[in-house]
Amino acid sequence: MTFSYESRKQGIETAKNTTADVLIIGGGITGAGVALQAAASGMKTVLVEMQDFAEGTSSRSTKLVHGGIRYLKTFDVEVVSDTVKERANVQKIAPHIPKPDPMLLPIYDEEGATFTLFSVKVAMDLYDRLANITNTSYANYLLSKEEVLKREPQLKQENLLGGGVYLDFRNNDARLVIENIKRAHEDGGIMLSKTKVIRITHDETGKVNGAEVEDCLTHERFTIRANVVINTTGPWSDHVRELDGNNNLPNQMRPTKGVHLVVDKGRLSVPQPTYFDTGKNDGRMVFVVPREGKTYFGTTDTDYTGDLLHPTVTQEDVDYLLEIINSRYPEVHLTIHDIESSWAGLRPLISANGGSDYNGGNNGSLSEAGFERIVQAVEAYQADASKKAEVEKAIKEADASLAEGTLTTSQLSRGSSFERSDDGLLTLAGGKITDYRLMAEGAMKHIQEILKEEFGQLFELIDSVNYPVSGGNLDSNHVDEEMANLAKEAQKIGLNEEDALYLAHLYGSNLPKALTYNTLVEGLDLRESIALNYALNEELVLTPVDYLLRRTNHILFFRDTLDKVKEPVVNRFSEVYHWTADEKMAMYQQLEAVLMESNLTKLKEENN
Amino acid sequence: MTFSYESRKQGIETAKNTTADVLIIGGGITGAGVALQAAASGMKTVLVEMQDFAEGTSSRSTKLVHGGIRYLKTFDVEVVSDTVKERANVQKIAPHIPKPDPMLLPIYDEEGATFTLFSVKVAMDLYDRLANITNTSYANYLLSKEEVLKREPQLKQENLLGGGVYLDFRNNDARLVIENIKRAHEDGGIMLSKTKVIRITHDETGKVNGAEVEDCLTHERFTIRANVVINTTGPWSDHVRELDGNNNLPNQMRPTKGVHLVVDKGRLSVPQPTYFDTGKNDGRMVFVVPREGKTYFGTTDTDYTGDLLHPTVTQEDVDYLLEIINSRYPEVHLTIHDIESSWAGLRPLISANGGSDYNGGNNGSLSEAGFERIVQAVEAYQADASKKAEVEKAIKEADASLAEGTLTTSQLSRGSSFERSDDGLLTLAGGKITDYRLMAEGAMKHIQEILKEEFGQLFELIDSVNYPVSGGNLDSNHVDEEMANLAKEAQKIGLNEEDALYLAHLYGSNLPKALTYNTLVEGLDLRESIALNYALNEELVLTPVDYLLRRTNHILFFRDTLDKVKEPVVNRFSEVYHWTADEKMAMYQQLEAVLMESNLTKLKEENN
Repeated sequence: MTFSYESRKQGIETAKNTTADVLIIGGGITGAGVALQAAASGMKTVLVEMQDFAEGTSSRSTKLVHGGIRYLKTFDVEVVSDTVKERANVQKIAPHIPKPDPMLLPIYDEEGATFTLFSVKVAMDLYDRLANITNTSYANYLLSKEEVLKREPQLKQENLLGGGVYLDFRNNDARLVIENIKRAHEDGGIMLSKTKVIRITHDETGKVNGAEVEDCLTHERFTIRANVVINTTGPWSDHVRELDGNNNLPNQMRPTKGVHLVVDKGRLSVPQPTYFDTGKNDGRMVFVVPREGKTYFGTTDTDYTGDLLHPTVTQEDVDYLLEIINSRYPEVHLTIHDIESSWAGLRPLISANGGSDYNGGNNGSLSEAGFERIVQAVEAYQADASKKAEVEKAIKEADASLAEGTLTTSQLSRGSSFERSDDGLLTLAGGKITDYRLMAEGAMKHIQEILKEEFGQLFELIDSVNYPVSGGNLDSNHVDEEMANLAKEAQKIGLNEEDALYLAHLYGSNLPKALTYNTLVEGLDLRESIALNYALNEELVLTPVDYLLRRTNHILFFRDTLDKVKEPVVNRFSEVYHWTADEKMAMYQQLEAVLMESNLTKLKEENN
Repeated sequence: MTFSYESRKQGIETAKNTTADVLIIGGGITGAGVALQAAASGMKTVLVEMQDFAEGTSSRSTKLVHGGIRYLKTFDVEVVSDTVKERANVQKIAPHIPKPDPMLLPIYDEEGATFTLFSVKVAMDLYDRLANITNTSYANYLLSKEEVLKREPQLKQENLLGGGVYLDFRNNDARLVIENIKRAHEDGGIMLSKTKVIRITHDETGKVNGAEVEDCLTHERFTIRANVVINTTGPWSDHVRELDGNNNLPNQMRPTKGVHLVVDKGRLSVPQPTYFDTGKNDGRMVFVVPREGKTYFGTTDTDYTGDLLHPTVTQEDVDYLLEIINSRYPEVHLTIHDIESSWAGLRPLISANGGSDYNGGNNGSLSEAGFERIVQAVEAYQADASKKAEVEKAIKEADASLAEGTLTTSQLSRGSSFERSDDGLLTLAGGKITDYRLMAEGAMKHIQEILKEEFGQLFELIDSVNYPVSGGNLDSNHVDEEMANLAKEAQKIGLNEEDALYLAHLYGSNLPKALTYNTLVEGLDLRESIALNYALNEELVLTPVDYLLRRTNHILFFRDTLDKVKEPVVNRFSEVYHWTADEKMAMYQQLEAVLMESNLTKLKEENN
């Protein structure tokens, strides 16, 4: 089954003529997670996204599945425990996407330092225990000052004490979204990008029963009927709640902007992700991450009240990050002209959480039965210290058992919120990318209950911890071997080893199918041709930017080959979609505008 | 060698006619710790204390050697690590004083709670690891709500989630002081209570060379010459610095007051020390501790600017603590009339630390050599996880090695300060009781250096971690057996088992000597007679209050027998010291005044 422009057209026709069980508004990671679980559970599922999947927010993160070790500084052990455990779940269902990538944490003797050498060792040990990685090859370790400088000779030596290295994970945010979307599509869900909600519809009793939407390609408007409508639009969630006029809910979003900048590794080179205090004693930390021959760094964290569709990188953002990086790497002297690309994204923070962080509280309520389980596990632990993990499991399960039937936010994800308005509109908002599966799982229990109680429909929910995303049918315990085997297949059709491995990591278990799309595209090599053909047929790309920015990270991390590929890519789109000359020119201009925004052309000109 | 009124007189004559190597001003735990190490290292040591030993501050603590688990909440792991390790050192050199006494930490589901059930388990595990008590019978464990209530049926049930139990230690603060003082005396030090400094003296170059003091018993004034003068007067340390006019140092003390109240266990009963949030969401926690058939609770923490000699319990202090206790034990309904005794003390906080806590920062500086040791230990740890303790040891030793030669506060104790004024006066201030040995050790290195560089005197410092206080010549790994054996000896002279054990814990390895003072005192039983005779001959008691409040805790925890013993005690003092009728009456009135202050007679009358 393809997932393409054609299948999208069919999907729209189907959506017009049936009542969905669940209509999901918003195709970022939150909506994609709900879509996968709803479709897999047999619900008639429709998802509408006004832009491309992941375009608004979920393609603009730091691109790490970060364990949040800094939360140990305030002893938010539940947060860290939940995050590292959920990270393991995501790694299991999407083994080709989050990849272990140990983090280097240089420690400086300076005011406001988050960690000392001693406390970082204790924090890393605690982190490893919470993540159950104490006795693996990924166990944390300390580095001396000399060893840190051997790894990162450009790093500032003054006041450097040493460093810690602990397991963290890289991520590919937009790919995680599309793989969830693709799986929902495979399971019969109708996943519609560039389909914008105009209006929430209500039945004669005033209850939400669907939405009027506009196909942004044809400008046709039509109505999608649904028993349950769930709003998963991230920063836009207050807008959608306002569209549904039948409620008087206060706004809940207080987004902040996060900016990342990319330079060539010839200008700034790090051998592994690196994470340090800003050195400004502002309580913030910054990542420097190597990827695909480039190095990116970020993030900023500033309140955002501008146009949600166009968060941009400002001169202040650039100054802030360059000052930090140039202070930590004093010989590097980066300027704005070194920046090859960039991205700015909004964190969909819930204002109830203070707007400053992803972490909400934890009320700590436990059921009596849950408590008994903890006590038993503790007693077992007393008898045999190796059973520590079981205690924690019991504590977590007891915590979860509490919410059977009655959904609480603690069941979802810290920093997320779930609500049902008086007229029935569900809104699932906030949260971290890492927690998307958990958030969806919590929402699904509620949706299941509504469909049963109010529509007499019985659905059995999938076990989402064991339900892989598209491309994720791999043994998550042996990812490297799986990748090597897949790459071998790719080499058989003429790809070199590097390209073969690249595609294996990109597509996971979908690689064999992707390899069937091996018709060369004019102007592209085999790897590029396969990726473009596969995207056009199986990943619903409607514009060159969809493909070059979100299905691949070409615009962000492959600037060097961009000039070579952009024309062939636009040409191929134009052929497939039968664009007129004007349409083709418009698409070309759209691509150029995105490139100019990404490489900060305007700011650079102002700096000359 | 006795330590008595007579030996004090001889000591004064000796002090007049020799130049001491070290003159210590202040006989609380800080001065007593320095005195022990100085005398044991062969220095001619004189200590002067204007009141009784420990009277001003060191007899007024919470009487726990508390590990500070709450500091994990802010991930102050160095503080906790240092505290639990130093506690082990103190337990080794004074094994009859700090005693293991596991702490119960009930966890409530309420706003501002320090810990949840999950985070307290993680905190206790981390605490046990830092203290190397993971696999002993003292390892921490969780209790269910029902189990907590079984232990403490009076505890509030509402919102109670369960509890944690972890190793903490009780202390006997005034006894720890006197045992250090006694050991310094045994090693030739001249330890003078009730001897007040009038003036710091200087040589012709303006350098501090001693002090003019007044014997508060005879009002005789005389001068004590000394090469080094060290000010260890706690809350009075700014006063002594001001007495030494030759400096322009800013004040450094910002004392806060801490109040504890004692009730009979018939009114409030806890089976073990218990520690909980105040419930007022004020970030504070309160202890409830059983001792000798009584229960005491505290503490308050309020800025104090009044008379340093007389911090008193106010109505506000009583209201604050009773409100907390009555809220946690809702059926108990304590009133001020239940309070049998009380004490108020000042924390000698250094204002540079913000005045709000004992914890200063940690600059984290490490020598290269020290770092290499950490790295090696870490590598060993990687190979064998059991070597975790060695990593921590290496980190701590590296930290200590940094300060060889040049004294830094990190070598002393967090929250303490050490300085030398331009004219040579040393001041060692702040710090926790738990850290007294460490503070003294740091100061001694400096004193050793001054005596060598400026006076050509060479002293080899003792290994203070292995130098027991008086009464501490016991196997600290088998304290219970040692106590049982000592008690058996006591039973041979006619003491019952309970009294025998009581005296064994009070005197440790000095018990055999104490038992030789078995002449019955009129009106006292054998145990009481032994304690009084021993105190008069071997513990320099000059008033009945010295004996009843600080050599024993009679006034605090044995209110029931106080009426019976106070007259015999005063009579015996009068006989020994040949008091006139007026002097005896004055002493009796002094004792009554102390009793009335302790049992809050005045406040109780105002409440009627």
